Amino acid sequence: MRVKQILFLGTSVLVCCLFWTGRHAYAEPQGRIVRIAELEIDPTQIESYKAALKEEIETSIRVEPGVLTLYAVSVKNQPAQIRIFETYADEAAYRAHLETPHFKKYKTGTQGMVKSLKLIETEPIMLGTKAR
Amino acid sequence: MRVKQILFLGTSVLVCCLFWTGRHAYAEPQGRIVRIAELEIDPTQIESYKAALKEEIETSIRVEPGVLTLYAVSVKNQPAQIRIFETYADEAAYRAHLETPHFKKYKTGTQGMVKSLKLIETEPIMLGTKAR
Repeated sequence: MRVKQILFLGTSVLVCCLFWTGRHAYAEPQGRIVRIAELEIDPTQIESYKAALKEEIETSIRVEPGVLTLYAVSVKNQPAQIRIFETYADEAAYRAHLETPHFKKYKTGTQGMVKSLKLIETEPIMLGTKAR
Repeated sequence: MRVKQILFLGTSVLVCCLFWTGRHAYAEPQGRIVRIAELEIDPTQIESYKAALKEEIETSIRVEPGVLTLYAVSVKNQPAQIRIFETYADEAAYRAHLETPHFKKYKTGTQGMVKSLKLIETEPIMLGTKAR
């Protein structure tokens, strides 16, 4: 009976591994909403802005199933220039995100820190990604 | 004995699920190289360019362990304006990518299609992502 148990366990692990490997390919972008946000932050408030942004990203990724990426970076040697690469599962997920309390908190809380905001709507060509 | 087998299977699935869930958090950006490429393509060659780009992305994600994302999009209603959000595991992975035959093939093959190329080096703030 030990043998059977080992076979069972082995099969389960194998199935999980196959599942895992399959995810290492690239995303089909159908229906995905991809947006690039370009922000300029008040230079005296960069640290406060980054703290608020990190909190917003952490919460969105954790609680919203349709928020797929919120990649936030600053341009090298220009810490006030922020770029956020946002991916949502679909239009509904994007709309829902805008109505969440954590997004509204971020939006209100950082209002006085953001000098300019440009939102770039995009058409996905290929969203190549690998599981970490 | 059936019960034991079911318990075994259940435990394996649970472990895999926990593993899966753990990956839904957000990436620590230490060491990551994140670059944004902004390209303008010859309007008469957009389809050829996109085909070459897709092939390059598909291959890089599949064969290079250190290429984590190559998210390619065009600006809405401006199909000649391309943005690529590139994430590499570290500096070595980035350098290695530039030396691969598939990258060189893409680079040479699209030379006559690219009207301008701007590479923006960045400092990651938070790379929030969720497994697909």
